[in-house]
Amino acid sequence: MNQVAHSFEQIISQHEQDAKDLTRILPASKKVYVQGSKADIQVPFRQISLTDTPIGLAKNGFEQNAPILVYDTSGVYTDPAVTIDLNQGLPKLRENWISERDDTEILDALSSEFGRERLKDIRTENIRFAHICKPRKAKPGKNVTQMHYARQGIITPEMEYIAIRENQKQHAGVDSRQHKGETFNNPRGAKNLTEITPEFVRQEVAAGRAIIPNNINHPESEPMIIGRNFLVKINANIGNSALGSSIDEEVAKMTWATRWGADTIMDLSTGKNIHETREWIIRNSPVPIGTVPIYQALEKVNGVAEDLTWEIFKDTLIEQAEQGVDYFTIHAGVLLRYVPMTANRLTGIVSRGGSIMAQWCLAHHKENFLYTHFDEICEIMKAYDVSFSLGDGLRPGCIQDANDEAQFSELKTLGELTHRAWEHDVQVMIEGPGHVPMHMIKENMDLQLEVCSEAPFYTLGPLTTDIAPGYDHITSAIGAAMIGWYGTAMLCYVTPKEHLGLPNKKDVKDGIITYKIAAHAADLAKGHPSAQVRDNALSKARFEFRWEDQFNLSLDPDTARSMHDETMPKEAHKSAHFCSMCGPKFCSMKITQNVRNYAKELDVQKEPDVQKELDVQKGMDEMKTKFHNEGSKLYHAV
Amino acid sequence: MNQVAHSFEQIISQHEQDAKDLTRILPASKKVYVQGSKADIQVPFRQISLTDTPIGLAKNGFEQNAPILVYDTSGVYTDPAVTIDLNQGLPKLRENWISERDDTEILDALSSEFGRERLKDIRTENIRFAHICKPRKAKPGKNVTQMHYARQGIITPEMEYIAIRENQKQHAGVDSRQHKGETFNNPRGAKNLTEITPEFVRQEVAAGRAIIPNNINHPESEPMIIGRNFLVKINANIGNSALGSSIDEEVAKMTWATRWGADTIMDLSTGKNIHETREWIIRNSPVPIGTVPIYQALEKVNGVAEDLTWEIFKDTLIEQAEQGVDYFTIHAGVLLRYVPMTANRLTGIVSRGGSIMAQWCLAHHKENFLYTHFDEICEIMKAYDVSFSLGDGLRPGCIQDANDEAQFSELKTLGELTHRAWEHDVQVMIEGPGHVPMHMIKENMDLQLEVCSEAPFYTLGPLTTDIAPGYDHITSAIGAAMIGWYGTAMLCYVTPKEHLGLPNKKDVKDGIITYKIAAHAADLAKGHPSAQVRDNALSKARFEFRWEDQFNLSLDPDTARSMHDETMPKEAHKSAHFCSMCGPKFCSMKITQNVRNYAKELDVQKEPDVQKELDVQKGMDEMKTKFHNEGSKLYHAV
Repeated sequence: MNQVAHSFEQIISQHEQDAKDLTRILPASKKVYVQGSKADIQVPFRQISLTDTPIGLAKNGFEQNAPILVYDTSGVYTDPAVTIDLNQGLPKLRENWISERDDTEILDALSSEFGRERLKDIRTENIRFAHICKPRKAKPGKNVTQMHYARQGIITPEMEYIAIRENQKQHAGVDSRQHKGETFNNPRGAKNLTEITPEFVRQEVAAGRAIIPNNINHPESEPMIIGRNFLVKINANIGNSALGSSIDEEVAKMTWATRWGADTIMDLSTGKNIHETREWIIRNSPVPIGTVPIYQALEKVNGVAEDLTWEIFKDTLIEQAEQGVDYFTIHAGVLLRYVPMTANRLTGIVSRGGSIMAQWCLAHHKENFLYTHFDEICEIMKAYDVSFSLGDGLRPGCIQDANDEAQFSELKTLGELTHRAWEHDVQVMIEGPGHVPMHMIKENMDLQLEVCSEAPFYTLGPLTTDIAPGYDHITSAIGAAMIGWYGTAMLCYVTPKEHLGLPNKKDVKDGIITYKIAAHAADLAKGHPSAQVRDNALSKARFEFRWEDQFNLSLDPDTARSMHDETMPKEAHKSAHFCSMCGPKFCSMKITQNVRNYAKELDVQKEPDVQKELDVQKGMDEMKTKFHNEGSKLYHAV
Repeated sequence: MNQVAHSFEQIISQHEQDAKDLTRILPASKKVYVQGSKADIQVPFRQISLTDTPIGLAKNGFEQNAPILVYDTSGVYTDPAVTIDLNQGLPKLRENWISERDDTEILDALSSEFGRERLKDIRTENIRFAHICKPRKAKPGKNVTQMHYARQGIITPEMEYIAIRENQKQHAGVDSRQHKGETFNNPRGAKNLTEITPEFVRQEVAAGRAIIPNNINHPESEPMIIGRNFLVKINANIGNSALGSSIDEEVAKMTWATRWGADTIMDLSTGKNIHETREWIIRNSPVPIGTVPIYQALEKVNGVAEDLTWEIFKDTLIEQAEQGVDYFTIHAGVLLRYVPMTANRLTGIVSRGGSIMAQWCLAHHKENFLYTHFDEICEIMKAYDVSFSLGDGLRPGCIQDANDEAQFSELKTLGELTHRAWEHDVQVMIEGPGHVPMHMIKENMDLQLEVCSEAPFYTLGPLTTDIAPGYDHITSAIGAAMIGWYGTAMLCYVTPKEHLGLPNKKDVKDGIITYKIAAHAADLAKGHPSAQVRDNALSKARFEFRWEDQFNLSLDPDTARSMHDETMPKEAHKSAHFCSMCGPKFCSMKITQNVRNYAKELDVQKEPDVQKELDVQKGMDEMKTKFHNEGSKLYHAV
């Protein structure tokens, strides 16, 4: 039962598998780039090739199916033209854009005392990333946030890159249906739903409705945007704990998570060598990295919350900002007066950051130092363009505690802090719950939009029931899809191991795929212009028995293919005109083909140049005869 | 790769496992019965025992946790006092209730010609159930439906049984929170949410808002109700196909599905020996069984849809009614004039029953014989109390086709047929989609309630996106939870193998647990009076580090336990005051205990008999000293 203690053989085989996974390209796929206005604005997509419609089902005897482009978070790992070396880190995609702005400088040494110590610590030399660059920082008096540029009317290369990435007009081929039904919280009118321009990206960032988490010290990252007028994003948490996991494992989890679609990664390490682990992750990550700096600060005071000080925390912020962390979760809304509001909860304070700060506040009987030093934090954030993820330290930990006074009091304080950050042109998103029953989810979204002035919402699920440990990716996907539809910009994934243990690779993938489903369901419901293209392509493939295309278009081609092979393993069945649910003798899709043919005949008979007052019985009899003459079989061998 | 061809050893080991699973009792659980007004009204529940709150966390030094009763669909398989013999079938729980009504008679022989033939067919002798009873039928002129009794003001034992089963007042112990937030389609006012009486059950059945699927030839079944003012139910589909699966396997799937919570089972067999397989399933099933009779009728005409006749179909209905099928899916709403409406769909007609009837209509250019013979069908249904599940033969097969003219035209016809069935006092529920994006789900529910006059809705999912084959239990659980909240009475499960292959035991369980989550999330959102008791008990156990109780209270204790053991396998960790996500050094729940203690101190200081104008700094300093004197550690060894 002990699956922590691996055998040597297991470790070797795991490493071999990780190496294969690292650069594997999904079936029928290739990396393509869409060129922007400058040579170095090249926006990656994954292009999935499709087969032709089988003869007999094709409309005009022959029908090609255009390839489909999908949003691609996997970075250059899946570009065979790029040599991958984890020891070197990824190419620095944004370096020129940053330096061309001429508002930053390269420092001679790290500004963080702790960072400098770690650099010369002989005990960690063998695990240290070998190619640490000197840190970059805003020149004195400069503000290098994307929000700052946006508010001055500047469209950065990052914004143009994002507009191309989000605006998958290239996907056209099957028309997206007109959006009908309920729509929530979408300030853009229907006419704006058709195109996302660089100028629209700029406006959304300037208004605070979207953020571009892009630390100037993480030039390896591919720009992406978090805001409710864009595709819904998902975050995957990784990180070691005192109980286990190595640097290799965490880097492998990061590349694995981005391969399957994680838009950002949070490194929540609380175990050994947090600093060194983070460096390896950032240098090799094509997506923004978030952290909760208070976790590392707590390690620095040996886990004793009341020994935390502003100075230790500040040094930790600078240490991490100079490594390239793109957003910080900061629990500045856990105010002293809110803490007693949690006393009668069923499960008290369940956020780690929240409980650390509550412990500190009570031990000192002082106001939360993250709140009292908030402007100083903003000064640090804007010198590196680190975005805030204002933490919900008082989020509910069970259904019973949802939407209570403690939770909503903190949310209102986060709204106040949002405006304070915006005064510094620092980008902000707001973290949300947690555990909320379905009928109380919308209240969260509406209140957040109101009190946080439309800053992007970033929620953990929410879980819609507490009774299914082992399946909390599912209990929470229900809530995540709904709140995504209502307007949440990014969904923090939950794995099946939530509440039970540390996720392994399988759990990470299960969490990612489940959350890609929730995010995509939300995009469909919100009417994102390109969202339905992939659904339609897959459904068309299904209708036309193009099994390989069905697998290749799915979020997880491997699982789709292997499940199909369990029932019908033979290669011949991949193009068979029946599926395993019905068996070979009758198949509803085949019958539908017949229906369609006959409906066409009916239409022809109704043409205006044909006798208008159709002799109904005569027509019926003719149809009947024709049907029988044509063989009226339900199953035709291909 | 070929997982169909099992080795002999695999088959034996599977049978051994099936035998163990058959009567296994879940951990810390026992079967209990609540006594009704008559000796033979004994309503089963599963009682989960809980451990005491650990000393130190307990409120008054010692705190017991009352056992929790949960709704139990597993039948007497989990009652150690009952000897299980699949060859004999289950005890006939309802036999006396039925015969006491004195409106039925035992027939000397089966009324179905096909049924009589099969009884003497020497080729199937070795697989035939050995103890087939003579069939029971309403006496001439009698109507034996629960709706008929209800409309005459009669409260049947079945209704009382259901009231006890639904009204889990025994669960009290943790108060359910006041329902706030959005509520949909609940005609009962808040004051009625507290108790479900036998009279309330009768009223709901009489009004057609709920059905009790209880064929008089299935006296083994434990009464249950399907209606939106009761717990949301789930159905599991099983059944063989031409490609595989034996009778043993199907019976094992049925008992397996009910063990994990299936409220009804649909036997969708289309392969060999459909009649014999069904007999075995019904005789051993503690839950209602549904079928789609057109599948078997089609087998009788060798799979050629246009060879179907009313006579063959009628004999099939009687054959199945006398075996004890509790509800029939009948695709009587697929009218000739609706068929061409599907011609421009992306995926045409995807319902098997729908496409069979469409094929028949077009081949003959006649109206659907299920529609033209509807009153004769009602006559058969009321002689055995078989409920209608009016099939949605034109349901959408992809996001693109959702809520279209074909789908909603058929729905309106199902509304017309509902009233025709009710004229016969025959119970009716309505089947619903399918594939529907989130923002178009509510329209389905609202229209169904309107045009079908509040007859219970029974939906397949709906799937909220098409792009995740292999994960369609999840794509559909999102839609199922939402439509359950909006008012759907029963959710037909979808397994991970949907669209890909035949579900195996693991898939069946995955589908069931996922749908128990969706149904329970809906019960919470609807404010079912007892729903939240289990959530609260589990969350309390989580907060108090009672790991075993967390596992035992979860929908799937085995998975919860094994996931926990992967990270922390040692027995000692089961009672450790930390979980694997945080590690031993700091734990948010432990910190919360400290917060709670201090909040209490604050409260004491604020008592009116204490100095009102508290010297704030003095109080703070005192608290700080007290905190440090008490050791202020975050982790206390147990």
